[in-house]
Amino acid sequence: MTTQPQTLPLAERATGLVGSVIDSSTSLLASQTHDIVRFAMGSPAAEAIPTQVLADIGTEAIGPAAADAFDYAATEGDPALRDALLGILEGTGDATTAERLTITSGGMQGLDLACKLFVDPGDLVVVESPTYTNGSATALSYQAELLEVPVDSEGMSIDALEEGVERAGRTPKAIYTIPTFQNPSGASMSLERRHRLLDLARRWGSVVIDDDPYGMLRFAGEELPSLRELGAGDPLVFSVRTFSKIIAPGLRVGWVDAAPELQQLLINAKQAMDTCTNLPAQRLVAGFLAGGHLTDHLEVQRAEYRRRKVAMQEALTEHFGDIAHWTDPEGGFFLWVSFDRPVATEELFPVALAEGVAYIPGNAFSPSQAFPHDLRLCFASTPPDRIREGVARLRRAVDRLDAEA
Amino acid sequence: MTTQPQTLPLAERATGLVGSVIDSSTSLLASQTHDIVRFAMGSPAAEAIPTQVLADIGTEAIGPAAADAFDYAATEGDPALRDALLGILEGTGDATTAERLTITSGGMQGLDLACKLFVDPGDLVVVESPTYTNGSATALSYQAELLEVPVDSEGMSIDALEEGVERAGRTPKAIYTIPTFQNPSGASMSLERRHRLLDLARRWGSVVIDDDPYGMLRFAGEELPSLRELGAGDPLVFSVRTFSKIIAPGLRVGWVDAAPELQQLLINAKQAMDTCTNLPAQRLVAGFLAGGHLTDHLEVQRAEYRRRKVAMQEALTEHFGDIAHWTDPEGGFFLWVSFDRPVATEELFPVALAEGVAYIPGNAFSPSQAFPHDLRLCFASTPPDRIREGVARLRRAVDRLDAEA
Repeated sequence: MTTQPQTLPLAERATGLVGSVIDSSTSLLASQTHDIVRFAMGSPAAEAIPTQVLADIGTEAIGPAAADAFDYAATEGDPALRDALLGILEGTGDATTAERLTITSGGMQGLDLACKLFVDPGDLVVVESPTYTNGSATALSYQAELLEVPVDSEGMSIDALEEGVERAGRTPKAIYTIPTFQNPSGASMSLERRHRLLDLARRWGSVVIDDDPYGMLRFAGEELPSLRELGAGDPLVFSVRTFSKIIAPGLRVGWVDAAPELQQLLINAKQAMDTCTNLPAQRLVAGFLAGGHLTDHLEVQRAEYRRRKVAMQEALTEHFGDIAHWTDPEGGFFLWVSFDRPVATEELFPVALAEGVAYIPGNAFSPSQAFPHDLRLCFASTPPDRIREGVARLRRAVDRLDAEA
Repeated sequence: MTTQPQTLPLAERATGLVGSVIDSSTSLLASQTHDIVRFAMGSPAAEAIPTQVLADIGTEAIGPAAADAFDYAATEGDPALRDALLGILEGTGDATTAERLTITSGGMQGLDLACKLFVDPGDLVVVESPTYTNGSATALSYQAELLEVPVDSEGMSIDALEEGVERAGRTPKAIYTIPTFQNPSGASMSLERRHRLLDLARRWGSVVIDDDPYGMLRFAGEELPSLRELGAGDPLVFSVRTFSKIIAPGLRVGWVDAAPELQQLLINAKQAMDTCTNLPAQRLVAGFLAGGHLTDHLEVQRAEYRRRKVAMQEALTEHFGDIAHWTDPEGGFFLWVSFDRPVATEELFPVALAEGVAYIPGNAFSPSQAFPHDLRLCFASTPPDRIREGVARLRRAVDRLDAEA
């Protein structure tokens, strides 16, 4: 006798535990054995992972004489990492202090903590449209009601935000934004909009969840002040950061920068999530930062990611100039392709996979499925030659889908 | 101008984000510079961490040529770890199958997942009294109402459970138990009670959260069937396991064994918590299991922990025979001391620290503060000589507290 899931006494929020298309795509990808150019995942390039430096650090930091590196860590983070991180951030737009800093198990846990602290069931939470799938999924897992606000080339439309809030008839509890090199669009919020967003948040009493995984990966244009910096001292700015994109995602180490009044609550909440962040990885990151490796590493990565973005733009111009347009990010991992005619990117996916190229369909980034004719490409993890090949394959897939229609 | 926490738009559940005395004690302990015998934390002994083996495994598994070990992992866990773990569990009471298995970031995340899936605000959740602090804290962070059920030498009192549920006038959504070498009491639930507990859970439709971090560390007595085994195929048994006590806590790797119908929900929920469990640690554990190290390692640990428990029992008999009694665990890390007269163990704590010994006061293990005259001692992390010294210091602390009264 098989017992059906319905017979299990699930919590109401279980209906909000939505799957991620990105994860499904990843699983599907993992099972493919033929040659595929992978524009789907948002991982750093394999050759961008500083494995040799990490191995050298690990020899001592997590070596045979380092039993303490395998014990429980302090919930707020290992002192060695906290100190090194505070030093690295000094003089940047993310400069902060010990009482504002909590180490997290990746940026994702920062978002989980933000929702745990601020989001009651039924609360209105603003998300960008399109937005990071797991970001909106976290808010949904806390039974938030989402207000999706369009993103254009200058980031979240603040006019649309004001209109949306007016239409909703209530102010949002939280505004979730990825202001710089946004995932998935690649767009960055202009300085004027950053100011307007903070002004509205203050007026509404809304928490700004400032998620910025890519800010250190700028390869063109002028640096913009972070929301953290513009909102200095504003208790409503909750900043989520991660080493996933700048060192390695598998480490699962990130941090939260939030009002000092929140630190004890963050520690209590994190204790009831995973006790502490894994200590060997914290020690590896601490060694990487304290050893002064980050600056050189980022410089190399930025130059390479710029080369890759340019290669992708050129290939898109060659193969898609007649049927689509796309964004031109100044950093980060992603660009966003919008078809000028209704090319169904979910239907296109299996065809593209058969042609040997993978991407993420636009609807994956929108709880309301607002992007059936768009797709996200990650340029960061593929070398230029392969990028050109992948984009050519993608065009062949579109032509094949057209022919089959 | 300082902004007060009250001005922050906190979620209602934030009031349930209670601090852990264990963590406070740990922070307090970390700041002490004099010699202290540490019976407080539930960590394996430093010398019990297989650092050399882990370093040897790490040379390849997370070495310079292993960039893929630093990428995102599959949310359900790295295939290498999943395979090795299924192999290790074969033939044990925790034997399971791939579709029931989800790798977690330590046992704590297993408890977080259980509450996320099953506990709505206001739901009745049974916890043992005393119980693991962070276990009850997790349920509280989901706004559960707790029903505390006493533990005696045979584990949770099932009579008291039935009476408590009758008094509450409603059935529990979940029953949280640590059936074997319970934290903090060291007690194990008898076979008869295990059967009765499962029968009641079935009748009530309650999920049994079966948390068993210590089961593999039996050093005396007869092995008992796990709730997982007794409830085989019962979709209501949700088993939480961890490598924290048997390999190393800092790795933050554990697993959940639950009904296959729950696996996709678990993956979705975990994605919105921390995306995946850190991959380098998963690879280290996979190498440790696949290399056949666990059996020998456990054998050595069990013999050593037995020696330490005996030393503690003897020292307690010598120094506390006239004023207290204590439990006699057949495995695990902890024993529980109950004073025969009202020795206030929270007031005793700073005196004991000054005398050079640390423990956790009983009230830390009870949301209703039911154990003002009890304390938990961890015998696992201290060698026998130091245990004898620590227990003598503890008696001196009691005498000093008496003299000061």
